Amino acid sequence: MIRNSYPSFRQVLADNPLTRIAGAHSSLGGRIAEQSGFQAVWASSFEISAARCLPDASLLSMTDYLEAAAHIQKALSVPVVADCDTGFGNSMNVAYMVAEYESAGITAVSIEDKIFPKMNSFATADHTLLDVSAFAHKIETAKKAQRTDDFFVIARTEAMISGLGVDEALERCTAYADAGADAVLVHSKQKTKDQVLEFLGLWNDRLPVVVVPTTYPDWHADDARAAGVSAVIYANQGLRATITSLRSTFQSIYETGHTAHLEDNISGVKDVFDLQQLDEWQQLGV
Amino acid sequence: MIRNSYPSFRQVLADNPLTRIAGAHSSLGGRIAEQSGFQAVWASSFEISAARCLPDASLLSMTDYLEAAAHIQKALSVPVVADCDTGFGNSMNVAYMVAEYESAGITAVSIEDKIFPKMNSFATADHTLLDVSAFAHKIETAKKAQRTDDFFVIARTEAMISGLGVDEALERCTAYADAGADAVLVHSKQKTKDQVLEFLGLWNDRLPVVVVPTTYPDWHADDARAAGVSAVIYANQGLRATITSLRSTFQSIYETGHTAHLEDNISGVKDVFDLQQLDEWQQLGV
Amino acid sequence: MIRNSYPSFRQVLADNPLTRIAGAHSSLGGRIAEQSGFQAVWASSFEISAARCLPDASLLSMTDYLEAAAHIQKALSVPVVADCDTGFGNSMNVAYMVAEYESAGITAVSIEDKIFPKMNSFATADHTLLDVSAFAHKIETAKKAQRTDDFFVIARTEAMISGLGVDEALERCTAYADAGADAVLVHSKQKTKDQVLEFLGLWNDRLPVVVVPTTYPDWHADDARAAGVSAVIYANQGLRATITSLRSTFQSIYETGHTAHLEDNISGVKDVFDLQQLDEWQQLGV
Amino acid sequence: MIRNSYPSFRQVLADNPLTRIAGAHSSLGGRIAEQSGFQAVWASSFEISAARCLPDASLLSMTDYLEAAAHIQKALSVPVVADCDTGFGNSMNVAYMVAEYESAGITAVSIEDKIFPKMNSFATADHTLLDVSAFAHKIETAKKAQRTDDFFVIARTEAMISGLGVDEALERCTAYADAGADAVLVHSKQKTKDQVLEFLGLWNDRLPVVVVPTTYPDWHADDARAAGVSAVIYANQGLRATITSLRSTFQSIYETGHTAHLEDNISGVKDVFDLQQLDEWQQLGV
Repeated sequence: MIRNSYPSFRQVLADNPLTRIAGAHSSLGGRIAEQSGFQAVWASSFEISAARCLPDASLLSMTDYLEAAAHIQKALSVPVVADCDTGFGNSMNVAYMVAEYESAGITAVSIEDKIFPKMNSFATADHTLLDVSAFAHKIETAKKAQRTDDFFVIARTEAMISGLGVDEALERCTAYADAGADAVLVHSKQKTKDQVLEFLGLWNDRLPVVVVPTTYPDWHADDARAAGVSAVIYANQGLRATITSLRSTFQSIYETGHTAHLEDNISGVKDVFDLQQLDEWQQLGV
Repeated sequence: MIRNSYPSFRQVLADNPLTRIAGAHSSLGGRIAEQSGFQAVWASSFEISAARCLPDASLLSMTDYLEAAAHIQKALSVPVVADCDTGFGNSMNVAYMVAEYESAGITAVSIEDKIFPKMNSFATADHTLLDVSAFAHKIETAKKAQRTDDFFVIARTEAMISGLGVDEALERCTAYADAGADAVLVHSKQKTKDQVLEFLGLWNDRLPVVVVPTTYPDWHADDARAAGVSAVIYANQGLRATITSLRSTFQSIYETGHTAHLEDNISGVKDVFDLQQLDEWQQLGV
Repeated sequence: MIRNSYPSFRQVLADNPLTRIAGAHSSLGGRIAEQSGFQAVWASSFEISAARCLPDASLLSMTDYLEAAAHIQKALSVPVVADCDTGFGNSMNVAYMVAEYESAGITAVSIEDKIFPKMNSFATADHTLLDVSAFAHKIETAKKAQRTDDFFVIARTEAMISGLGVDEALERCTAYADAGADAVLVHSKQKTKDQVLEFLGLWNDRLPVVVVPTTYPDWHADDARAAGVSAVIYANQGLRATITSLRSTFQSIYETGHTAHLEDNISGVKDVFDLQQLDEWQQLGV
Repeated sequence: MIRNSYPSFRQVLADNPLTRIAGAHSSLGGRIAEQSGFQAVWASSFEISAARCLPDASLLSMTDYLEAAAHIQKALSVPVVADCDTGFGNSMNVAYMVAEYESAGITAVSIEDKIFPKMNSFATADHTLLDVSAFAHKIETAKKAQRTDDFFVIARTEAMISGLGVDEALERCTAYADAGADAVLVHSKQKTKDQVLEFLGLWNDRLPVVVVPTTYPDWHADDARAAGVSAVIYANQGLRATITSLRSTFQSIYETGHTAHLEDNISGVKDVFDLQQLDEWQQLGV
């Protein structure tokens, strides 16, 4: 089969005590994540804009992010969770976003309560949040706009990112749950998981909680699950490894003047062919 | 400046005794290649299709390849050389291709003398060549279609790939030179550089020669230059290193259950920001 | 509801004694066709390339045609039948095409037995056909590549266009039916319907027959149905009317120096709003 | 020549006492406008979104609008003026927009002082304006981001649309001129030209003034020029004529059951071929 079928993210979440999700910006990254065991793939705005050498600041448009997410999904038999930033504008944009992502076969999206255009959460910048009721209205609109029951909307709060703390995060997540969100994502850029743990302690499992342990990398998946987390996103490690690898590879070629020494350390052409499913395609005949 | 200016490939070739070119499929790969010293970037069909998990078999269209090449070029201050496969059809398609690539700011393209749809040169497959006069007509059409004097057309022969040998390559390259090609690319998949060396010995420097030493990785750039080569393309090592790196990174996260051990071995978020030129963008104010 | 659901073309064909199909190149044209009563919309290569001021000669790629077809489908509650030319290459391209169109929500495609790149059937040009077994293999591959039972593949023969006559058309359609086609499309550019009638007389209803009466415009739909036709495509009249209308509108503005005289003869801005479903969108709130 | 060269909009404005501009959403509309005598073509957001059956409310993204504008420009030998709404976000988005449009060969853009996401000016809706200094900063950023001297930025005020009157329009246009705008566009939806005339009387020719007489269609171009207008945009009459024409054509086919009666009233296939420049393309050979 040259195109895979895949379960919805809702199904995957139901089937796994903890859903582990790897960030990607291309079909290739997504496929390798799937082959490595991940149950879903995060179509990361940060990665997708970095692949274009552009800041993660709402410069690329929904059209661009959707294209990237759809390309990734087509290569996988696990679901994509699409990082949809702020929903690309107001509630009308959110409705359009849901219609477009759902038509493209995406089964889960995440939108966050920052103001459009947003700036990446790790950047030193203004991270003013949208009024809670306005964002709740976006969630409500998203849920009304979906056509299949399966479609899954994650409400992401940037309360902790913008320095408003756990109480604000709780209040907001409660409002988003009331508005119909299917899960909440609480993002923190503290060096420890403490803020997130505090949130989990107070949240009472009202909805599944998704976390992104970029700045507290030592939080073991088992411990996150034990603390009440339903899904963990390893959002950008693949990108960061790719950068390191490309840099050392290109520098090494440039400096040594040849590639003989690389041959044993990089994938063979045959490995690329396998990722391209060349054999399956060639069996179709010409 | 948020967008770079760049010299044409013609200019780069004139300015360097040997032009070294690295393959890429994204702006990010292109920018790292440029930072590593390469004088140009090869927008590789093999890489671009692999990033989509599709075989390099004319499945992706000119629209897709052009988009990728244009994205790469926009991030660089060195020129892109666009791998344009067969020219995507007949001479009419080639004329359209030249118009489109030139409008997108690409200054050099390479087309090859296989039949559309083509199959990747390293795949076990039929590699029948187009009739020499038909391909010469494509070259002629390409040169007539360009609007600027700078635009550069590389005629790539697959004579050696298809087992026809050095004589056929010479005869074809001569015809392509007569048709107006700006350079020739002779591709070989032998384990040694001997075939290419034989070609160079007989070619008499009529036009610049481009080589792609994927299967003879120990050919040093200095030796290639001494043998009469004008440009070397390291076509897919970046992709192959990326695959290895992604695989070990994702497997390691999945197996260990966290990412703490990776932190010292992968780029930091700040490094990603630099590649995104976040500071320059933020200086624009909001 | 901001996005419609729609039946498959297979369903529409089953539900109507005669399915009438109008050609379009944009969502707007498609929506007006639907509002006028048509049961399906033909995403015409001729129209789509004309909208780009490019010949209908395989210059635009599958990516472009698919984007146009998908945009049209998203605006409709009747199905699109996508004009897929030759299938954009060989059987491998056809398999990819089916996967992509099906993923985009298209329920019916038509491919024709000319050689890639093709030239529009009405142009004075070489219209050499692909070998019958090679095209039958494309049909077989298309049917194997589809994932839903509903997906519908129309085999279009250009035998009459290329001057080979009714016998060749019959032989080819038989082979295509054997290969699994869901319907056949017999195209003729004679000034009368006689050739097509002759075909219908000999065909014995083996599969539904689709016709395109561009050059025999006086064939009444009722008569076509009585003669055994299942679907009629009015392939390009909308485009041709648009050209006439744009030309007289623009010339009139330029010559008179104002637009007052046009106001009673062209749609109002409110009419445009209705086609954009502005009210429905505004009810979503902001 | 299969692709035209074209003067910049700046050049056209300098060469004509009054520049007349027709709205279009496709290359076809643009080419017919050019053939009818217009000196430039307006790539209208209203038309482009209507062609997709979507409201003109920042649902389509910069990616979509740019693609449409670039397609139109490629078919013309007169310049496109791209309707860029609010600039698609904040000043950072404006800088990206300028980089992208300039790279695509567009020589003039117009941005307006509404808040993103915007709603079409003729719709009953909130038309709150952006703070004047924030929009002036967008203009300043746009001018800094351009790389060629020729690139032309039109500052469009919606002061009259939002009911703030002529004084506000003057104050804003003055600030935008101070910020470096190349021209101002004053938009009014009153039934008469009086508001615009009042503005012109007070403006003192500081910068060229562009008008869009959609709701005061009887203003003759000569009178507009005499009143101090430099450019008139007939923004959507082509679209509105197309809708009327498509509706009557499709209804007529559906009701009569054939197309014979249309043949004398719609363009012939040969006329379409001419707009596609089929002859020029065929002369390239295959």
